Amino acid sequence: VPVGGNTGLTGATSAEDAIMVSLDRLKGVRSISREARTMVVGAGTILDDIHMAADAEGLIFPLIFGARGSALIGGALSTNAGGSNVLRYGNTRDLCLGIEVVLPDGRVMDLMSRLHKDNAGYNLKHLFIGAEGTLGLITAAVLKLYPAPIIRATAMVGMASLERALPLLNALQEATGGAVEAFEYMPQSYIARHIEETGQRAPFDGSHPVNILIEAASTRSDEAAPDADGTPRLKSIMEALLAEAMEAGNIDDAVVAASEAQRREMWDRRERAAELTFTGRPILDTDIAVPLEEVPAFLEKARARTEALDPGCEEFLVSHLGDGNIHYSVYITRDDPALSRTLMEAIEDLVLAHGGTFSAEHGIGLSKLGSMARRKDATALKAMRSLKAAFDPKNLMNPGKVLPAL
Amino acid sequence: VPVGGNTGLTGATSAEDAIMVSLDRLKGVRSISREARTMVVGAGTILDDIHMAADAEGLIFPLIFGARGSALIGGALSTNAGGSNVLRYGNTRDLCLGIEVVLPDGRVMDLMSRLHKDNAGYNLKHLFIGAEGTLGLITAAVLKLYPAPIIRATAMVGMASLERALPLLNALQEATGGAVEAFEYMPQSYIARHIEETGQRAPFDGSHPVNILIEAASTRSDEAAPDADGTPRLKSIMEALLAEAMEAGNIDDAVVAASEAQRREMWDRRERAAELTFTGRPILDTDIAVPLEEVPAFLEKARARTEALDPGCEEFLVSHLGDGNIHYSVYITRDDPALSRTLMEAIEDLVLAHGGTFSAEHGIGLSKLGSMARRKDATALKAMRSLKAAFDPKNLMNPGKVLPAL
Repeated sequence: VPVGGNTGLTGATSAEDAIMVSLDRLKGVRSISREARTMVVGAGTILDDIHMAADAEGLIFPLIFGARGSALIGGALSTNAGGSNVLRYGNTRDLCLGIEVVLPDGRVMDLMSRLHKDNAGYNLKHLFIGAEGTLGLITAAVLKLYPAPIIRATAMVGMASLERALPLLNALQEATGGAVEAFEYMPQSYIARHIEETGQRAPFDGSHPVNILIEAASTRSDEAAPDADGTPRLKSIMEALLAEAMEAGNIDDAVVAASEAQRREMWDRRERAAELTFTGRPILDTDIAVPLEEVPAFLEKARARTEALDPGCEEFLVSHLGDGNIHYSVYITRDDPALSRTLMEAIEDLVLAHGGTFSAEHGIGLSKLGSMARRKDATALKAMRSLKAAFDPKNLMNPGKVLPAL
Repeated sequence: VPVGGNTGLTGATSAEDAIMVSLDRLKGVRSISREARTMVVGAGTILDDIHMAADAEGLIFPLIFGARGSALIGGALSTNAGGSNVLRYGNTRDLCLGIEVVLPDGRVMDLMSRLHKDNAGYNLKHLFIGAEGTLGLITAAVLKLYPAPIIRATAMVGMASLERALPLLNALQEATGGAVEAFEYMPQSYIARHIEETGQRAPFDGSHPVNILIEAASTRSDEAAPDADGTPRLKSIMEALLAEAMEAGNIDDAVVAASEAQRREMWDRRERAAELTFTGRPILDTDIAVPLEEVPAFLEKARARTEALDPGCEEFLVSHLGDGNIHYSVYITRDDPALSRTLMEAIEDLVLAHGGTFSAEHGIGLSKLGSMARRKDATALKAMRSLKAAFDPKNLMNPGKVLPAL
């Protein structure tokens, strides 16, 4: 059982009567190529240390999530971690050019490619990334780096209906040439609880059913330079677009952060999600995704369905809306495993009916084994079992994870 | 043996005493979501038909290569095709959200995800993409679409040394916010032959050792709008950057296309590559890639090595330089299989010494089986054989391709 920073959310590093493998001695950034924008790291390197090493070269490694101060890159690769920047830069697998893997029999497989194109046979890299250590142990990686943005435009937008969100995202992408890095949805209930719990101020004077945190970022000096009125061009572009959306009645309010302090306030609100979600009340939490255009219909049905099954239950959610990824939770009225299961199956039914997944960015580990057994396409699940048998016939690697017992 | 448009370059659809499976009845665009920017297609759909269907919605499917008028998307997926836009949009696998696969025993595996995040178990999609039909037959796909650019800036740049190219690409990426779509290298010999064969004019008054075709594209209306002097802003940005590079002595000449006709002329020069390469003379051709920072050193050594082994031989090459992908060819002095093999092994030695691959974007098929046997990491090759055995134990699917005989 390989153990990284132990920040996973599905129990993938849980071990009983098992040998736990620490990645501590695989720590460290081994090399950086500033011009080719690649970095070679050991699997035991803390994500924040990778960020700092990239920063020293004027570059970024754009994988960002809450646990970055203790999560190890080996764990992020093994779970194909997501986060708040996926919209622009992709998931962890998209940020990785190559890996080194130790197979169950001890052989080392060298897939440490620094290449942007390599069609020499089956793509083994993508098989081990996201396999949660069940096929082999990732020991090192080649990461892709990006030039560091020099200007950011961050805004909060309030609107009446989620139907308006996707057109706004598309308009922002077109106006900024694809520079949108975050598009994070917080419903009214989230904002209200945030104010209640933290005493922080509300994002707007009035309250809105739909609140979205938007951030765009640019490496361009002409976009960092001030316009005639002293506003950096990137912010002017965002302000103009939001003013136009307001005029057209597509959004109801908008605030563009005028300072880094205002930007931090907006991000802090979003990053309190875990703290605001887990209050000690009985909860059912999920990590689902549906196709972008299905999000509004899915959420409408989910609320009706859960309320019908457990009258008085309360939903709570936050969403990486630009990726269709929703952390949808339900506070149930009583701590009853049968009720929990009924509700979970109802949510899964809806997710699947809308073409979605029951595991978007956290993986399977132990906690999603039930969903895998119930919901994964039977042919695909059988194919996964064949893969496990081919690479790890003795079931040595992180046994009992990812694949449900037969 | 699945047969698409039969435009592959490695013999992957060659069949003897085998059943050939046509994709003709899997033709057609099934649906497009304009807002979610996805398209569902049958595997038998011609790439150009996909381009037209996307265009009708104001979108693009950015997979572009010479054979797009007859290549089928099923073949492009099965070979993970590259092309001239990989720098910005990635390889075929990066443009695909989901696939449907028929397994060797006839079961249909539904991986038709429209999701941007899905961590529900091993990534099977990436295993079948690029497997050249040896594990199963891809019958349908969900593709990613992008907003259509409304302005392009296209330029030819002449410089003395390839060492100057990567810093120029990085500067262009930073100045345009990552809008560079093509960065294509043509050496002096390529330009000279192009003039000789086509009678077209030279890109510059003088001649330069290194010639690079650059294209940036934008969806932004502010970049399509003219500056004070009537030039669209995106072109002004590129002109300013190239003028600065000239001033600094990093490049020696530059021409920005002032019209669509001038742009077409630049692209036509690049797209004549196959015609200019295959002249009827005995040739050794390759599809290699090395890490971006290794290209200059690799090319220098390759020329010396091939000249030493076959005095009087002549190299000819063209390169997707932004991806490190080089179509490196050698006209040998005589049609001698032993000489060809010696030269090929020498090139492979150099490619591997520089951390490169012997197959960048065309795949393995039949023609690269020798390279696979000689050069693929032994552990990785064994892992590939395990995968083949797990999915296709009777060796029914495109037998004899990708994996060299034992």
